[in-house]
Amino acid sequence: MPYIPLEEHLPGITGLLEYDKIAAAPIRELTQILLRGESTLTECERELIATVVSNGNQCKFCTAAHTAAADILLGENETSQKVKENIITAPVSNKMKALLTIASMVRENGKAVTQEAINKAKAEGATDIEIHDTVLIAALFCLYNRYVDGLATVTPAGSEFYKGLAERLKNHGYNRLPQGYDHLKKNKTVAP
Amino acid sequence: MPYIPLEEHLPGITGLLEYDKIAAAPIRELTQILLRGESTLTECERELIATVVSNGNQCKFCTAAHTAAADILLGENETSQKVKENIITAPVSNKMKALLTIASMVRENGKAVTQEAINKAKAEGATDIEIHDTVLIAALFCLYNRYVDGLATVTPAGSEFYKGLAERLKNHGYNRLPQGYDHLKKNKTVAP
Repeated sequence: MPYIPLEEHLPGITGLLEYDKIAAAPIRELTQILLRGESTLTECERELIATVVSNGNQCKFCTAAHTAAADILLGENETSQKVKENIITAPVSNKMKALLTIASMVRENGKAVTQEAINKAKAEGATDIEIHDTVLIAALFCLYNRYVDGLATVTPAGSEFYKGLAERLKNHGYNRLPQGYDHLKKNKTVAP
Repeated sequence: MPYIPLEEHLPGITGLLEYDKIAAAPIRELTQILLRGESTLTECERELIATVVSNGNQCKFCTAAHTAAADILLGENETSQKVKENIITAPVSNKMKALLTIASMVRENGKAVTQEAINKAKAEGATDIEIHDTVLIAALFCLYNRYVDGLATVTPAGSEFYKGLAERLKNHGYNRLPQGYDHLKKNKTVAP
Protein backbone atom coordinates (compact mmCIF):
# COMPACT_ATOMS: atom_id res chain seq x y z
CA MET A 1 0.00 0.00 0.00
CA PRO A 2 1.67 3.25 -1.14
CA TYR A 3 2.35 5.97 1.44
CA ILE A 4 0.49 8.55 -0.66
CA PRO A 5 -2.70 8.04 -2.66
CA LEU A 6 -1.73 6.84 -6.16
CA GLU A 7 -3.97 5.49 -8.86
CA GLU A 8 -4.37 1.77 -8.26
CA HIS A 9 -4.00 0.74 -11.88
CA LEU A 10 -0.60 2.50 -12.15
CA PRO A 11 2.06 0.53 -10.23
CA GLY A 12 5.67 1.50 -9.51
CA ILE A 13 6.97 4.63 -11.19
CA THR A 14 3.93 4.92 -13.45
CA GLY A 15 1.64 6.16 -10.66
CA LEU A 16 4.27 8.64 -9.44
CA LEU A 17 4.75 10.16 -12.89
CA GLU A 18 1.00 10.68 -12.98
CA TYR A 19 0.80 12.01 -9.40
CA ASP A 20 3.29 14.80 -10.08
CA LYS A 21 3.14 15.62 -13.77
CA ILE A 22 5.24 18.75 -13.30
CA ALA A 23 8.28 16.92 -11.95
CA ALA A 24 7.57 13.99 -14.28
CA ALA A 25 8.25 16.04 -17.42
CA PRO A 26 11.99 16.65 -16.82
CA ILE A 27 12.43 13.17 -15.30
CA ARG A 28 11.02 11.59 -18.46
CA GLU A 29 13.10 13.90 -20.65
CA LEU A 30 16.33 13.15 -18.80
CA THR A 31 15.65 9.42 -19.06
CA GLN A 32 14.94 9.66 -22.77
CA ILE A 33 18.17 11.59 -23.33
CA LEU A 34 20.28 9.14 -21.34
CA LEU A 35 18.69 5.83 -22.35
CA ARG A 36 17.49 6.58 -25.88
CA GLY A 37 19.45 9.63 -27.03
CA GLU A 38 22.40 9.49 -29.42
CA SER A 39 25.18 7.43 -27.85
CA THR A 40 27.97 5.00 -28.68
CA LEU A 41 26.43 2.72 -26.04
CA THR A 42 23.52 0.69 -27.38
CA GLU A 43 20.06 1.09 -25.91
CA CYS A 44 20.43 -2.40 -24.54
CA GLU A 45 23.76 -1.61 -22.86
CA ARG A 46 22.17 1.39 -21.20
CA GLU A 47 19.21 -0.72 -20.04
CA LEU A 48 21.71 -3.16 -18.52
CA ILE A 49 23.27 -0.30 -16.51
CA ALA A 50 19.78 0.58 -15.25
CA THR A 51 19.15 -3.08 -14.45
CA VAL A 52 22.38 -3.61 -12.51
CA VAL A 53 21.86 -0.47 -10.41
CA SER A 54 18.20 -1.23 -9.68
CA ASN A 55 19.07 -4.80 -8.78
CA GLY A 56 21.83 -3.63 -6.43
CA ASN A 57 19.38 -1.26 -4.76
CA GLN A 58 16.92 -4.15 -4.46
CA CYS A 59 14.22 -2.16 -6.22
CA LYS A 60 12.04 -4.97 -7.55
CA PHE A 61 9.86 -2.82 -9.80
CA CYS A 62 12.75 -1.07 -11.58
CA THR A 63 14.79 -4.26 -11.80
CA ALA A 64 11.92 -6.16 -13.42
CA ALA A 65 11.08 -3.26 -15.75
CA HIS A 66 14.61 -2.71 -17.05
CA THR A 67 15.40 -6.40 -17.20
CA ALA A 68 12.35 -6.76 -19.46
CA ALA A 69 13.46 -3.72 -21.48
CA ALA A 70 16.95 -5.20 -21.98
CA ASP A 71 15.51 -8.62 -22.82
CA ILE A 72 13.17 -7.32 -25.50
CA LEU A 73 16.01 -5.34 -27.11
CA LEU A 74 18.32 -8.38 -26.99
CA GLY A 75 15.73 -10.93 -28.01
CA GLU A 76 16.80 -13.24 -25.16
CA ASN A 77 16.76 -13.19 -21.37
CA GLU A 78 20.04 -14.81 -20.43
CA THR A 79 22.36 -11.80 -20.62
CA SER A 80 20.37 -9.65 -18.19
CA GLN A 81 20.11 -12.55 -15.75
CA LYS A 82 23.85 -13.23 -15.87
CA VAL A 83 24.75 -9.56 -15.55
CA LYS A 84 22.66 -9.42 -12.36
CA GLU A 85 24.40 -12.50 -11.01
CA ASN A 86 27.99 -11.57 -11.81
CA ILE A 87 29.20 -8.68 -13.96
CA ILE A 88 32.64 -10.16 -14.52
CA THR A 89 31.50 -13.54 -15.85
CA ALA A 90 28.48 -12.22 -17.77
CA PRO A 91 28.44 -12.51 -21.58
CA VAL A 92 29.09 -8.83 -22.30
CA SER A 93 32.15 -7.02 -23.70
CA ASN A 94 35.10 -6.19 -21.47
CA LYS A 95 34.24 -2.52 -21.90
CA MET A 96 30.72 -3.17 -20.62
CA LYS A 97 32.07 -5.17 -17.66
CA ALA A 98 34.22 -2.18 -16.74
CA LEU A 99 31.34 0.27 -17.15
CA LEU A 100 28.91 -1.91 -15.18
CA THR A 101 31.53 -2.12 -12.44
CA ILE A 102 31.68 1.69 -12.34
CA ALA A 103 27.87 1.81 -12.24
CA SER A 104 27.86 -0.53 -9.24
CA MET A 105 30.37 1.70 -7.46
CA VAL A 106 28.25 4.78 -8.18
CA ARG A 107 25.24 2.95 -6.76
CA GLU A 108 27.08 2.39 -3.49
CA ASN A 109 28.32 6.00 -3.25
CA GLY A 110 29.90 8.44 -5.68
CA LYS A 111 33.11 8.32 -3.67
CA ALA A 112 33.33 4.55 -4.17
CA VAL A 113 34.37 4.99 -7.81
CA THR A 114 38.10 4.37 -8.04
CA GLN A 115 40.74 5.71 -10.42
CA GLU A 116 41.60 2.05 -11.06
CA ALA A 117 38.06 1.30 -12.26
CA ILE A 118 38.17 4.36 -14.53
CA ASN A 119 41.57 3.36 -15.90
CA LYS A 120 40.27 -0.14 -16.59
CA ALA A 121 37.28 1.22 -18.51
CA LYS A 122 39.52 3.51 -20.57
CA ALA A 123 41.92 0.64 -21.26
CA GLU A 124 38.96 -1.38 -22.56
CA GLY A 125 38.10 1.43 -24.95
CA ALA A 126 35.48 3.40 -23.02
CA THR A 127 35.38 7.07 -23.99
CA ASP A 128 35.06 9.96 -21.55
CA ILE A 129 31.46 10.46 -22.66
CA GLU A 130 30.65 6.78 -22.12
CA ILE A 131 32.10 6.98 -18.62
CA HIS A 132 30.18 10.19 -17.97
CA ASP A 133 26.93 8.68 -19.24
CA THR A 134 27.43 5.50 -17.21
CA VAL A 135 27.87 7.52 -14.01
CA LEU A 136 24.84 9.69 -14.74
CA ILE A 137 22.60 6.75 -15.71
CA ALA A 138 23.61 4.96 -12.50
CA ALA A 139 22.91 8.14 -10.50
CA LEU A 140 19.53 8.55 -12.22
CA PHE A 141 18.50 5.04 -11.23
CA CYS A 142 19.54 5.75 -7.65
CA LEU A 143 16.91 8.51 -7.89
CA TYR A 144 14.29 6.26 -9.50
CA ASN A 145 14.81 3.36 -7.10
CA ARG A 146 14.41 5.67 -4.08
CA TYR A 147 11.38 7.42 -5.54
CA VAL A 148 9.64 4.11 -6.28
CA ASP A 149 10.48 2.36 -3.00
CA GLY A 150 10.55 5.44 -0.74
CA LEU A 151 6.82 5.90 -1.33
CA ALA A 152 6.10 2.16 -1.17
CA THR A 153 4.58 1.91 -4.63
CA VAL A 154 3.02 -1.34 -5.76
CA THR A 155 5.18 -3.97 -7.49
CA PRO A 156 3.16 -6.22 -9.82
CA ALA A 157 3.92 -9.93 -9.45
CA GLY A 158 4.58 -12.07 -12.52
CA SER A 159 6.13 -10.94 -15.76
CA GLU A 160 3.14 -9.85 -17.86
CA PHE A 161 3.04 -6.23 -16.70
CA TYR A 162 6.76 -5.74 -17.31
CA LYS A 163 6.61 -7.33 -20.76
CA GLY A 164 3.93 -4.85 -21.75
CA LEU A 165 5.91 -1.98 -20.28
CA ALA A 166 9.08 -3.09 -22.09
CA GLU A 167 7.16 -3.26 -25.36
CA ARG A 168 5.98 0.33 -24.87
CA LEU A 169 9.49 1.49 -23.96
CA LYS A 170 10.92 -0.24 -27.02
CA ASN A 171 8.38 1.30 -29.37
CA HIS A 172 7.88 4.73 -27.84
CA GLY A 173 10.82 5.40 -25.52
CA TYR A 174 10.59 7.34 -22.28
CA ASN A 175 9.58 10.64 -23.78
CA ARG A 176 9.83 12.57 -26.97
CA LEU A 177 13.21 14.19 -27.30
CA PRO A 178 13.14 17.83 -26.22
CA GLN A 179 13.01 20.60 -28.77
CA GLY A 180 16.45 21.82 -29.71
CA TYR A 181 17.96 18.42 -28.94
CA ASP A 182 19.76 18.16 -32.27
CA HIS A 183 21.20 21.60 -31.85
CA LEU A 184 22.33 20.91 -28.29
CA LYS A 185 23.80 17.56 -29.22
CA LYS A 186 26.35 19.25 -31.42
CA ASN A 187 27.66 21.13 -28.41
CA LYS A 188 28.22 18.01 -26.36
CA THR A 189 31.93 18.22 -26.66
CA VAL A 190 34.69 17.51 -24.24
CA ALA A 191 35.94 20.68 -22.59
CA PRO A 192 39.46 21.69 -23.60
CA MET B 1 41.52 15.66 -10.59
CA PRO B 2 38.23 14.79 -12.32
CA TYR B 3 37.95 11.48 -14.17
CA ILE B 4 36.82 13.26 -17.34
CA PRO B 5 38.10 16.58 -18.73
CA LEU B 6 36.03 19.38 -17.18
CA GLU B 7 36.66 23.11 -17.34
CA GLU B 8 39.00 23.97 -14.50
CA HIS B 9 37.18 27.11 -13.42
CA LEU B 10 33.91 25.18 -12.95
CA PRO B 11 34.09 22.97 -9.84
CA GLY B 12 31.58 20.38 -8.59
CA ILE B 13 28.30 20.17 -10.43
CA THR B 14 28.94 23.37 -12.40
CA GLY B 15 31.50 21.74 -14.70
CA LEU B 16 29.25 18.71 -15.27
CA LEU B 17 26.27 20.84 -16.25
CA GLU B 18 28.52 22.51 -18.79
CA TYR B 19 30.05 19.23 -20.00
CA ASP B 20 26.68 17.74 -20.90
CA LYS B 21 24.31 20.59 -21.65
CA ILE B 22 21.69 18.24 -23.04
CA ALA B 23 21.24 16.29 -19.83
CA ALA B 24 21.78 19.47 -17.80
CA ALA B 25 18.57 21.09 -19.10
CA PRO B 26 16.10 18.64 -17.51
CA ILE B 27 18.28 18.28 -14.39
CA ARG B 28 18.18 22.06 -13.87
CA GLU B 29 14.47 22.15 -14.59
CA LEU B 30 13.66 19.35 -12.14
CA THR B 31 15.72 21.07 -9.45
CA GLN B 32 13.99 24.40 -10.04
CA ILE B 33 10.57 22.75 -9.81
CA LEU B 34 11.40 20.88 -6.61
CA LEU B 35 13.46 23.53 -4.77
CA ARG B 36 11.93 26.75 -6.06
CA GLY B 37 8.53 25.82 -7.46
CA GLU B 38 5.23 26.45 -5.69
CA SER B 39 5.19 24.51 -2.41
CA THR B 40 3.97 24.68 1.17
CA LEU B 41 7.57 23.93 2.17
CA THR B 42 9.72 27.05 2.21
CA GLU B 43 12.74 27.32 -0.10
CA CYS B 44 14.88 27.13 3.00
CA GLU B 45 13.20 23.93 4.24
CA ARG B 46 13.83 22.35 0.86
CA GLU B 47 17.48 23.45 0.92
CA LEU B 48 17.77 21.81 4.33
CA ILE B 49 16.52 18.52 2.87
CA ALA B 50 19.20 18.82 0.15
CA THR B 51 21.79 19.61 2.83
CA VAL B 52 20.93 16.67 5.08
CA VAL B 53 21.00 14.19 2.19
CA SER B 54 24.27 15.55 0.74
CA ASN B 55 25.85 15.52 4.19
CA GLY B 56 24.74 11.93 4.78
CA ASN B 57 26.26 10.95 1.43
CA GLN B 58 29.45 12.77 2.42
CA CYS B 59 29.36 14.83 -0.75
CA LYS B 60 31.40 17.85 0.33
CA PHE B 61 30.61 20.03 -2.66
CA CYS B 62 26.81 19.60 -2.47
CA THR B 63 26.79 19.86 1.32
CA ALA B 64 28.72 23.13 1.27
CA ALA B 65 26.62 24.52 -1.59
CA HIS B 66 23.23 23.76 -0.05
CA THR B 67 24.33 24.70 3.45
CA ALA B 68 25.28 28.10 2.03
CA ALA B 69 21.97 28.28 0.15
CA ALA B 70 20.00 27.54 3.34
CA ASP B 71 22.11 30.00 5.35
CA ILE B 72 21.58 32.88 2.95
CA LEU B 73 17.82 32.26 2.93
CA LEU B 74 17.71 32.05 6.74
CA GLY B 75 20.11 34.92 7.37
CA GLU B 76 22.05 32.81 9.89
CA ASN B 77 24.20 29.68 9.83
CA GLU B 78 23.26 27.87 13.03
CA THR B 79 20.19 26.00 11.83
CA SER B 80 21.90 24.23 8.94
CA GLN B 81 24.81 23.28 11.18
CA LYS B 82 22.53 21.84 13.86
CA VAL B 83 20.39 19.98 11.34
CA LYS B 84 23.54 18.28 10.03
CA GLU B 85 24.56 17.35 13.57
CA ASN B 86 21.23 16.03 14.83
CA ILE B 87 17.85 16.32 13.12
CA ILE B 88 15.87 15.65 16.28
CA THR B 89 17.48 18.34 18.45
CA ALA B 90 17.84 20.91 15.62
CA PRO B 91 15.84 24.16 15.85
CA VAL B 92 13.28 23.28 13.18
CA SER B 93 9.57 22.42 13.43
CA ASN B 94 8.42 18.96 14.41
CA LYS B 95 7.06 18.54 10.91
CA MET B 96 10.48 19.33 9.45
CA LYS B 97 12.17 16.90 11.85
CA ALA B 98 9.81 14.19 10.61
CA LEU B 99 10.41 15.09 6.95
CA LEU B 100 14.19 15.30 7.37
CA THR B 101 14.05 11.87 9.03
CA ILE B 102 12.22 10.51 5.97
CA ALA B 103 14.81 12.18 3.71
CA SER B 104 17.61 10.45 5.63
CA MET B 105 15.87 7.10 5.21
CA VAL B 106 15.47 7.69 1.47
CA ARG B 107 19.17 8.52 1.29
CA GLU B 108 20.02 5.13 2.77
CA ASN B 109 17.63 3.21 0.50
CA GLY B 110 14.05 3.70 -0.62
CA LYS B 111 13.06 0.58 1.29
CA ALA B 112 14.40 2.08 4.53
CA VAL B 113 11.41 4.47 4.75
CA THR B 114 9.04 3.10 7.39
CA GLN B 115 5.28 3.41 7.77
CA GLU B 116 6.03 4.70 11.28
CA ALA B 117 8.11 7.59 9.91
CA ILE B 118 5.33 8.43 7.44
CA ASN B 119 2.70 8.31 10.20
CA LYS B 120 4.84 10.59 12.35
CA ALA B 121 5.15 13.15 9.54
CA LYS B 122 1.40 13.06 8.92
CA ALA B 123 0.71 13.43 12.66
CA GLU B 124 2.93 16.53 12.64
CA GLY B 125 0.84 18.00 9.83
CA ALA B 126 2.80 17.00 6.73
CA THR B 127 0.61 16.67 3.65
CA ASP B 128 0.86 13.90 1.08
CA ILE B 129 2.44 16.34 -1.37
CA GLU B 130 5.03 17.44 1.20
CA ILE B 131 5.92 13.81 1.86
CA HIS B 132 6.11 13.14 -1.88
CA ASP B 133 8.29 16.18 -2.47
CA THR B 134 10.58 15.29 0.43
CA VAL B 135 11.15 11.81 -0.99
CA LEU B 136 11.78 13.14 -4.50
CA ILE B 137 14.14 15.92 -3.34
CA ALA B 138 16.09 13.37 -1.29
CA ALA B 139 16.22 11.04 -4.30
CA LEU B 140 17.36 13.89 -6.57
CA PHE B 141 20.26 14.67 -4.26
CA CYS B 142 21.22 11.01 -4.27
CA LEU B 143 21.59 11.55 -8.01
CA TYR B 144 23.52 14.82 -7.65
CA ASN B 145 25.88 13.53 -4.97
CA ARG B 146 26.76 10.50 -7.09
CA TYR B 147 27.20 12.55 -10.26
CA VAL B 148 29.51 15.03 -8.51
CA ASP B 149 31.60 12.49 -6.59
CA GLY B 150 31.40 9.62 -9.09
CA LEU B 151 33.39 11.69 -11.59
CA ALA B 152 35.72 13.09 -8.90
CA THR B 153 34.91 16.73 -9.56
CA VAL B 154 36.85 19.43 -7.76
CA THR B 155 35.63 20.69 -4.38
CA PRO B 156 36.73 24.26 -3.64
CA ALA B 157 38.15 24.77 -0.15
CA GLY B 158 37.00 27.69 1.98
CA SER B 159 33.56 29.29 1.94
CA GLU B 160 33.87 32.06 -0.65
CA PHE B 161 32.93 30.00 -3.69
CA TYR B 162 29.82 28.61 -1.99
CA LYS B 163 28.71 32.03 -0.76
CA GLY B 164 28.81 33.33 -4.32
CA LEU B 165 26.95 30.26 -5.57
CA ALA B 166 24.30 30.63 -2.84
CA GLU B 167 23.83 34.27 -3.80
CA ARG B 168 23.24 33.27 -7.42
CA LEU B 169 20.83 30.51 -6.40
CA LYS B 170 18.93 32.93 -4.15
CA ASN B 171 18.60 35.56 -6.86
CA HIS B 172 18.21 33.44 -9.97
CA GLY B 173 17.20 29.94 -8.86
CA TYR B 174 18.29 26.77 -10.58
CA ASN B 175 16.62 27.44 -13.90
CA ARG B 176 13.76 29.34 -15.36
CA LEU B 177 10.52 27.50 -14.78
CA PRO B 178 9.49 25.47 -17.81
CA GLN B 179 6.87 26.73 -20.19
CA GLY B 180 3.43 25.51 -19.26
CA TYR B 181 4.41 25.27 -15.61
CA ASP B 182 1.41 27.25 -14.37
CA HIS B 183 -0.94 25.12 -16.39
CA LEU B 184 0.63 21.89 -15.20
CA LYS B 185 0.68 23.04 -11.60
CA LYS B 186 -3.09 23.13 -11.53
CA ASN B 187 -3.17 19.45 -12.36
CA LYS B 188 -0.95 18.47 -9.44
CA THR B 189 -3.75 16.90 -7.51
CA VAL B 190 -3.94 13.84 -5.39
CA ALA B 191 -5.31 10.91 -7.31
CA PRO B 192 -8.73 9.72 -6.10
